[in-house]
Formats: sequence, C-alpha cells, structure tokens
Amino acid sequence: MAACHARNQTVVAQGGMTGLVGGGAPRDGDVILSTERLTKIEALDRDGLTLMAEAGVVLQTAQEFCADAGLELPLDLGARGSATLGGVISTNAGGVRVIRHGMMRDNVLGLEAVLADGTVLSSMNRMLKNNAGYDLKQLFIGSEGTLGVVTRAVIRLKPRPKAIVTAFTASRSVADVASFLRHLQTEMGAELGSFEVMWPEYDAFVRARCPALKPPFAPNCGFTVLSEFLCGSAGDAEPRVEATLGGALKQGLIDNAVIAKNERERAAFWTVREGAGEGMRTLLPYFVYDVSMPIAAMESFGDRVRADIATTYPNSTVLVLGHMGDGNLHVVAAVGSGAAADHRAVDDIVYGIIRDLDGSVSAEHGIGVEKRDYLGWSRTPAEVAVMHTLKAALDPKNLLNPGKVL
Amino acid sequence: MAACHARNQTVVAQGGMTGLVGGGAPRDGDVILSTERLTKIEALDRDGLTLMAEAGVVLQTAQEFCADAGLELPLDLGARGSATLGGVISTNAGGVRVIRHGMMRDNVLGLEAVLADGTVLSSMNRMLKNNAGYDLKQLFIGSEGTLGVVTRAVIRLKPRPKAIVTAFTASRSVADVASFLRHLQTEMGAELGSFEVMWPEYDAFVRARCPALKPPFAPNCGFTVLSEFLCGSAGDAEPRVEATLGGALKQGLIDNAVIAKNERERAAFWTVREGAGEGMRTLLPYFVYDVSMPIAAMESFGDRVRADIATTYPNSTVLVLGHMGDGNLHVVAAVGSGAAADHRAVDDIVYGIIRDLDGSVSAEHGIGVEKRDYLGWSRTPAEVAVMHTLKAALDPKNLLNPGKVL
Repeated sequence: MAACHARNQTVVAQGGMTGLVGGGAPRDGDVILSTERLTKIEALDRDGLTLMAEAGVVLQTAQEFCADAGLELPLDLGARGSATLGGVISTNAGGVRVIRHGMMRDNVLGLEAVLADGTVLSSMNRMLKNNAGYDLKQLFIGSEGTLGVVTRAVIRLKPRPKAIVTAFTASRSVADVASFLRHLQTEMGAELGSFEVMWPEYDAFVRARCPALKPPFAPNCGFTVLSEFLCGSAGDAEPRVEATLGGALKQGLIDNAVIAKNERERAAFWTVREGAGEGMRTLLPYFVYDVSMPIAAMESFGDRVRADIATTYPNSTVLVLGHMGDGNLHVVAAVGSGAAADHRAVDDIVYGIIRDLDGSVSAEHGIGVEKRDYLGWSRTPAEVAVMHTLKAALDPKNLLNPGKVL
Repeated sequence: MAACHARNQTVVAQGGMTGLVGGGAPRDGDVILSTERLTKIEALDRDGLTLMAEAGVVLQTAQEFCADAGLELPLDLGARGSATLGGVISTNAGGVRVIRHGMMRDNVLGLEAVLADGTVLSSMNRMLKNNAGYDLKQLFIGSEGTLGVVTRAVIRLKPRPKAIVTAFTASRSVADVASFLRHLQTEMGAELGSFEVMWPEYDAFVRARCPALKPPFAPNCGFTVLSEFLCGSAGDAEPRVEATLGGALKQGLIDNAVIAKNERERAAFWTVREGAGEGMRTLLPYFVYDVSMPIAAMESFGDRVRADIATTYPNSTVLVLGHMGDGNLHVVAAVGSGAAADHRAVDDIVYGIIRDLDGSVSAEHGIGVEKRDYLGWSRTPAEVAVMHTLKAALDPKNLLNPGKVL
C-alpha cells in the first residue's frame, strides 16, 4: 500500500467477490489487492466471547471454528462459503440473523486497517466497552474499501442457542404480517432470530417455476412468513413457539401455521425462501433490488412497486420478499428486456418509491458502482458532502477503490 | 452555531451535566450551548420499534414514555433522572444493561447533528439496515461534542421483558466468577441482562461503612455477583434461573445463591451494588476509575491494582467492582490525600496496569479533559493521528468543545 501510495497507484481490495453492487470490481489500471493469504484464525477467547482472525478467512470457516467451540459467529448469509471476514466487514453485511444479532457492524469489536498511505491502523479492541476517543473502526465498516483495507478483526461471539424452532405461517395482508411480527417480538423477545416474508406472487412463482420446492400450504394462501426462534432453553422451546403461534391464530394475525418437525423439514422451509435460484433463471433477464424502509411503509411499497412497474411493463414479473423484521425487502423485477435503458427505468421506479417512503436504496448490499447514481436519493446533499469530506481526509489522493460509493 | 463559526467562537454543548470526565465543562470564553429546550418526543413507532426525540429529552422521561407503550428503551444508568438523550449519545453511555442491549451506539439508528459551521446534518434513519454510503452518525456517537452537536435521534426500542429475575451469589475466586458468567451465558443466553461483580474488600467496606445496606450473605463470603435475567416468558423464568444456579452450585462455580423473592428484595440487592454513596463519602477524598479489559485479565487487574497502590500508599482503601460481563470494572481508590500529585500518581498506577493488560483507560465515561493525558496509553500514535485527522476535517477551526478528548 505504501508503494502504491508513493506511485499514485489506485488499489482495489478483494475478498471472496460475492458482493452484489460491483464494489470489488477493478477498473483498467487499478492494482487488485487480494486478502486470500490472510487466512489465520488467531485466537478464540471463551471468557470474552471473541474471535480474532485475519481478513481473508472465509465466513463459513470462521463459523465452523466457533461452532466447534460451542459458540456462534453472529453473521450468516447465503454466500458463507466464499465471503471473507474482511469482505463482510467492509460491506457491513446483513443476512438472515439481523433481527437477533444486528449487522456485521454490531458484531465487530476491533479491527486493523491499512490506510491509503500504508499506515497500519491497529484498533484490535476486544472489550464490549471502550470509550477511549473516537471509535475509528466505524470508518472501515461498510465503507467498501474506500477509506482503508481491513486486514484483521476481533468479532463478538454468542452462545449457541439450545434449540432452533422454525415455523411457516400465512397471513391475509401485510398489516397482519406486521402485527404478527409485533406479537412474536412481544411473546418471544430476543429469541426471534429470523422473520422472512414472501409476497403472494412469490408463492405463485415458486409453484409454477420451482418444482423441487414444496411450499407447505395450498396455493393462494396469502403472505407467507418463515420465522425462526433461537431459544435459550431446549425443553420448552417448541411448546412456547406453539403457544405463541396459537395466540396469533386466535387473534387472526395468521390463518395457517406449521412448525418444522425435524432438520429435514426445517431445511425445506428455508429452501422455499432461499432456493428459488433455478426457477429464477427462467426469468432472466431480471433486475434485483435490496432496499429498506420503515416496517409501516412496507404495504405501500409492495403495492406501489408492483403497480408502477406494471404500468410501464404490463407483462413484467415482480417478486417481493425479504427480512421484514429488519425493514429490508428484496425485489426481483423481470420486465422482458435486460437493456440498460430498461434497467435505469426500473431503478428510477423502485428508488423513487423508496425516496418517497424515506427508505434506503441499499439495505445490506452497499452502494459500489451500481447504486452510486442513487446515493443522493437516500442521503441529503449535506450527508454526501460529509462523506466526501471523510474520503478527502483519509484518502486525499483518491487511491482506494476509486469510483465506488461516491 | 453558524454565527459562532463566523466569529471563530468556541462552543461547548451541554446536556444533563452528569458526565464524569469534564466533557461538558466550559473554559473561559467558551459559549455554552444548552439543549434544555429540545424536549420534544416526536414519534414512537410500534411496528418499527423506534423512538424519535429531541436531544434535550431526559433519559428517564424517554424510558417512561416507552414503558407506557409496553416497550423498553435499551439504555439504563444511575443518572437517568438528569442525563439527556443527546448526552448519552454524545458520550456513548453504557450502564447496567450493556451485556444484553449493548452501548448507546448499538441502539441509535439515526440522528441529526449540527456541524461546526452550522450545517444541519440530518441522518434520521429509522431502519435496522441502511448501507447507503458511510454511516455518518458514528462520528457523533461517543465523540463528546467535539465533531458536532447532536440535536435529534432515532433510538431502537425493545419489547419489555415478561419477567425479571435477580440473583445474588458468592464465589471463591475471580476465575470461578468468570466460569459462572460463562455458565450463565450458555444456559440463559440473551436473557442475561446484568452481571455485576464486587471484590471482597467492597463487601467488607459495605458492612463497615454503609449500615443501611444489607448484603445477603455472611461476612467473608468472597466475590459477590448480582446477576439479573430479562426473561421472554414469565411462568418458567424463576425455575429456569434456579436450575441454572443449581448447576453452578453443583459445579462449584458459586458457594451461595439467593433469588430476590419480590421487588423489595430486588431493590435491596441493587442497593448493595449502587447505593454505597453515603459510605463512600466517609472515604473522601478518593479517586474513581472506569476501565475495561478482557475478562481473562480481570483477576490479574484486581490483584495488581490493590497491591501496587498499597505499595505506594500503605493505608489506602481500594475497592474494585463493576460490569464484568462487559469487561468493565470501576475502581475507587482512597489514598489519604486528594492532592493533584497523588491523583496523578494513582492514575499512573491504574492506567499503567491497564496498558499492560491491553485494556482501555475509559470503558464508558469517555475521555473529556480528565483522561486526555492518558488517551495514548490505550490508543496507538496512528490511532490518535487519525482522530486528529477527523477533528481537523470536520472542525478545522477547532471551535467544538476544544481541549476535550484530544
């Protein structure tokens, strides 16, 4: 890094290359800095519940190392087999456990980053509490390699849950789903680990295009939810979830509910949510969106995004699903053409609704290059100006991942 | 703020003035900016679990507003009756629930800050997930008013626990206490809400100087722990805690255990931990420390801090207690004289041990003016240099709370 700095050479850091917004893509003339040899797991502290590791460690490798010690690494996401710790930190990754454990930012206690000029900034804090000056690590979490390159980190671990209970339910409206979520949060508290909602069109799509997937209910069952509970005590976990779902049925928040009886059923539930890839390919070309909004705005978002795209593209397919408990929805829009002009038109529709609803154009994927033009749709000019101030202060030559985010 | 900026006038923002490191103390010639009229609670979102409020709202007022809606504001600390939301954000306050809910930083979703030049930077995000560019709010959390003045915020709320179970236990060694903590984290998971440890000298001090406090065990009972569980389900909460404590007794991690039978007993337990103020006054003058370290280093810290102070001050009283689960201990040292030279000498002893143990000279109180000379004992020269870079970038005229932190 120091050598590149001396030569005014731009640098793009790369981890597992599983990002979805082009944050790790080099331009002509950029040096690529790979973290693939930074694979050391340095220490696991069972008293302090921390893992210290280098940035190139693959997420799944770190997860399994912690599981062997009876502990849980709080982050989980589909790309676990390739994504690296440095990558999930640099992008502030989210995933399927955010409602319980927060984003990656919430689970990084310390890190080491190399600055644009080669300075090694070591902030390898291992404590939950450290108010000795500015919390510098925040600069490098979620800034996509534009302010420094993460090389090591201290990650907070959690005790493994004693029991995991997974349920599939159906509700008649988004309002009911939101009330159901509140019911679960009240009754199950911090044990609610995932709350994944699928709009009716998604269910219909899965039945039509994904023969290997077996949704548990009959067709036209409404809005389906996969909820998962990470329970502190084993014996009473399932009865408690059952009683909680029973209460929701009685209140009319859900119409239908089933609890996975074994690991095979649990996997099948998750496959309905995550395994539609093959069916998706039949939709190609399509555009994917990762947006967030207040939960109270989700009904309006779902209605508008489908209606507005259909107005311009009458034969389009629009699927809405995502992590409702985190305010995060994903949209898949297949409008027929994959042309850049259509991509831009659909972007304008989706992000325009998000702007109206006071949401974010990026919930968990970041900005990279793909969303750069829309940053100002979720952030004020004053905010973007301060981002430029930070970039200029920490990387005055604009050598680190230039053209990304800003 | 714009007017002060135009006139090169320094500004010190003040909230409830409950800080412990002089962070809100003005120097001659500083303008004091009070947030006392920013008292509006703007919105409570029951679906999104967020509170939106102005910076001058008193913590306890906000807590009670949320409690009336059946929700919990995640931060709690002794100064709740005076501390303001702006203050607890600017200092990244901790308190007695950190092991469960994290520091204030972990519970701020969005905020509005006024920059040194009067720019209103509004980042009032309400979502758990927002990766649209740099997370600017982090700049203003815990930076003690040196980078901007917090004026509004969005705070994450939690469902209220269905039952609170409070236990008092005694162990023979710090190692046993650490094993007991691990046992509780394994068995009770996220339900563990507080884990407060008191070294034996503290117990002896309470018996000798605080006649109103009634420690539940006989004298010389060792290291005592107040643990509290915030349980998601009511009926089985106490039996589960009982069984967990039973397991710890059987394994020899604790010698003695009692569970509060009612709110009066619960309050009495907490008074042993928090209510020694009157007895403390008999120790005056004394110096107070707020430090953090890896849990595995706590035994060594407790031994060394008492031994090293006693070497220089044979007739001193040194009390050690604190939030072990957070890696945070407080030390009270009465060495006879309150003279500045003695204060400095004891600072050097305590922070010297902390430096050796790779801990932090400030766990939750911040740096302010009181710990400024010791910032470099917990942070590397590269870290301090980047802090100066941030300060220069955001407040180039050094008008905001000058002389604090850096």
